[in-house]
Amino acid sequence: MWTLRRGAASVPRTLRTLRSSSTLTTKDINQAVLTAEYAVRGELVLRAATIKKEGFKEQPYEKLLECNIGNPQAVGQKPISFGRQVLSLMCCPALLELPGTSELFAPDAIARAREYLAAIPNGIGAYSESQGFAIVRDQVAAFIEKRDGYPANPQDIFLTDGASKGVGFLLSLVLRGRSDGVLVPIPQYPLYSASLALQEAHMLGYELDEAGGWALPVSLLEAELSKAKANGIETRALVVINPGNPTGNTLSRENMQQIVQFCEEHEMVLMADEVYQENVYEEALPFYSFKKILCEMGSKVQCVSFHSTSKGFLGECGLRGGYFELMNFDPDVQAQLLKLVSIGLCSNTLGQIACGLMVAPPQQGEASYPAYAAEKEGIISSMKRRATMLVDGLNALEGVTCNAPQGAMYAFPSITLPPKAIAAAEAAGKVPDTFYALALLESTGIVVVPGSGFGQKEGTWHFRTTFLPPEDEMSSVVARMTDFHQGFMAKYA
Amino acid sequence: MWTLRRGAASVPRTLRTLRSSSTLTTKDINQAVLTAEYAVRGELVLRAATIKKEGFKEQPYEKLLECNIGNPQAVGQKPISFGRQVLSLMCCPALLELPGTSELFAPDAIARAREYLAAIPNGIGAYSESQGFAIVRDQVAAFIEKRDGYPANPQDIFLTDGASKGVGFLLSLVLRGRSDGVLVPIPQYPLYSASLALQEAHMLGYELDEAGGWALPVSLLEAELSKAKANGIETRALVVINPGNPTGNTLSRENMQQIVQFCEEHEMVLMADEVYQENVYEEALPFYSFKKILCEMGSKVQCVSFHSTSKGFLGECGLRGGYFELMNFDPDVQAQLLKLVSIGLCSNTLGQIACGLMVAPPQQGEASYPAYAAEKEGIISSMKRRATMLVDGLNALEGVTCNAPQGAMYAFPSITLPPKAIAAAEAAGKVPDTFYALALLESTGIVVVPGSGFGQKEGTWHFRTTFLPPEDEMSSVVARMTDFHQGFMAKYA
Repeated sequence: MWTLRRGAASVPRTLRTLRSSSTLTTKDINQAVLTAEYAVRGELVLRAATIKKEGFKEQPYEKLLECNIGNPQAVGQKPISFGRQVLSLMCCPALLELPGTSELFAPDAIARAREYLAAIPNGIGAYSESQGFAIVRDQVAAFIEKRDGYPANPQDIFLTDGASKGVGFLLSLVLRGRSDGVLVPIPQYPLYSASLALQEAHMLGYELDEAGGWALPVSLLEAELSKAKANGIETRALVVINPGNPTGNTLSRENMQQIVQFCEEHEMVLMADEVYQENVYEEALPFYSFKKILCEMGSKVQCVSFHSTSKGFLGECGLRGGYFELMNFDPDVQAQLLKLVSIGLCSNTLGQIACGLMVAPPQQGEASYPAYAAEKEGIISSMKRRATMLVDGLNALEGVTCNAPQGAMYAFPSITLPPKAIAAAEAAGKVPDTFYALALLESTGIVVVPGSGFGQKEGTWHFRTTFLPPEDEMSSVVARMTDFHQGFMAKYA
Repeated sequence: MWTLRRGAASVPRTLRTLRSSSTLTTKDINQAVLTAEYAVRGELVLRAATIKKEGFKEQPYEKLLECNIGNPQAVGQKPISFGRQVLSLMCCPALLELPGTSELFAPDAIARAREYLAAIPNGIGAYSESQGFAIVRDQVAAFIEKRDGYPANPQDIFLTDGASKGVGFLLSLVLRGRSDGVLVPIPQYPLYSASLALQEAHMLGYELDEAGGWALPVSLLEAELSKAKANGIETRALVVINPGNPTGNTLSRENMQQIVQFCEEHEMVLMADEVYQENVYEEALPFYSFKKILCEMGSKVQCVSFHSTSKGFLGECGLRGGYFELMNFDPDVQAQLLKLVSIGLCSNTLGQIACGLMVAPPQQGEASYPAYAAEKEGIISSMKRRATMLVDGLNALEGVTCNAPQGAMYAFPSITLPPKAIAAAEAAGKVPDTFYALALLESTGIVVVPGSGFGQKEGTWHFRTTFLPPEDEMSSVVARMTDFHQGFMAKYA
């Protein structure tokens, strides 16, 4: 199309300006963009936006409940006060010279801002080093050492605009072209499918074991790897999301050891998405980092661990803070990664500070500690109660089963849809779980993401919902979901 | 190498763990990363970092002067107070409820924070819409309308983490593969060469006319286009940087009209990098946006204008704020772009607010206006004086000529290097202008970027320096450059 139109230079001017066909169409653009899908902000969200824009004229509700995205502060979670006080002072260092400041800000927030500003005398308005502020990378390294009991080197840590950007950098580094592939869990967080589609690389999906609490069956990895090889695809990396998104599970140590062993045998980069490491609800299944497992095993597997300020109990999604830690990477490759990162100059400086505040919170004995501890405990215990309330409600529904969330902030129930519902979906040109989720939206205002956006075992249907709505609304959410589901099942019985 | 190593699964475990060759090497990674160069943070900056790390042991100075990057606050520029007050309140909305706040913050800063928070009740901690906060996009549209006298639609505006990210999105959208190319000025800002290298697309350089004050000769565009076509390359877009980086020129209206006409004839996307639109120093050569020129001509050329909070007189580089405006794009293509942007969720929210503050500053009659106007005028007039001081100093040097900067924040002098210096550079394995810039760094601590990092007419040598050092240090900078240059020229005479 485009090549045809380029001949237009020889067409008389008046004619040309009348033609409206000179603009790029979706046929002319990078087809990888067209192919990429990002369900978390996909069809359901577009429909929800339209409903909102139209003022809920035809709906039996007056507001949406956005359970489609792990965005805690969008549904009422309050930020941690200490961190926000420090950020506020970092924006306006002049405040530190004013006597009234000590009445508005906690003394340890003031001290922390002074500490950062002593290390960063130019403040937050200058580009930082491309890898991120040294003082924050030191704090991240100290946090990792304390968490795992093994040393961490600030030179191996890169501060990023959220975890997504870090994943993008690593994929750009590792993927060389159309015959490369990456092993990704099914179901997966659609950042991976979208990024791989954009890079025109293969997503090699391995199915998690729903009946086994979403464990990762290493035998399936072997099978996928062989299949890829037979298709001429080189498998470059393995993505593991732990705690799981959308599955909400936490991997056992044994399972993690098997995974490391697999990566070792196949000399594969392990991309460990560990952004939900603070969202763990089962005492019997604590979070272990892959770094710790690697160190315990003495493994030389090349591993990248991603973390973010957006999740955990902070939920600072808008600030776009995060980091990744490289393990066992070749220094020359690391230098190339730094160059790649430097093309974007640096991640946003307030997100970097937020990352420092995440990994170095107030300590016992400091002025803000009691408030910090109470805020943290309040959020985490409430999340756990909300998760239980939601999952119990879902499991009470006909044809719905849901593993109890052990981590993260999502439930991913399986729904057995009646054949008539599947036929109705097909008639409407919709994937059945999208059809279900759209009906749920129209009827209740609750926005979830259909399982097909994450991938699911063939013939099964799911949706992902966060358990982030405020606790006092949770029983009403469950009641609305229940009413809707009963009506839906009755309609298509 | 990689394929060989993948056979390792059959090697006994003990043997395998002893091998250190299993890590990725630079041979195994995406070769496009290896190829991409970003001179602004390249060899000179790495050497400068080493000098700093070693504590200036062998240098006759004790600090570096970073003139390699347009990073005003890194060299002492103060942020605009009003904006920082609003950002501070946005970080800590609880302050708005405390009586002491009115003593520390200006009343219009408090009012502005309340206005933003009324529109964004969840605050800065939630992801925004992928395209950016609606209230900020409205402000950007109003700013553009006022600047150009033509309407702007908030739906055509996307808020981004600085301008670089916007450029990346557009190139991802437009480039389809290895036979696509983009016309880029020579000299250019290396974001373009690096991004094109990463996307494995062709950079089609067109030389700006140094003797003509860095004007853009449209005849050369035609020639490059034909050359590309003959080589089987489809030219997808034309990049124009105005005011120029590194050249510091401002395009005339006539030149801009020719450029639009060229894009119209060849149905090419015009990527207008207009991040220096507030940095204009010649009254006779004001900034005109391509939007305005397009509207005046009634042109339907598809154009994207990029802007940033990092430049102008704000210099808020660390906050990573910016926007792009689309003109005459197909709505379906625009929807694809929105999807692409949504994969990264959203740009950082404080950068978005900073963008709003850039385009909607205090107005006459408001409490912060006098301070704002004085800060703005102080920075811009000082930049102009510093530019003059620097360029006059450079033009006084043997073999150096430099166009007077009409805009932006850089001087890009041409240096005639003596043959002996060129021979010495070759003996040292360095490009001659890199050799010169490294010698300048060793001798003075001044970090500049060699012209070869931007591209330059064959046989000419340049360097780019900002004129951002504090005004009271500028004469010492010029003196140090002069001493160095005289010594260098004497050594290689």
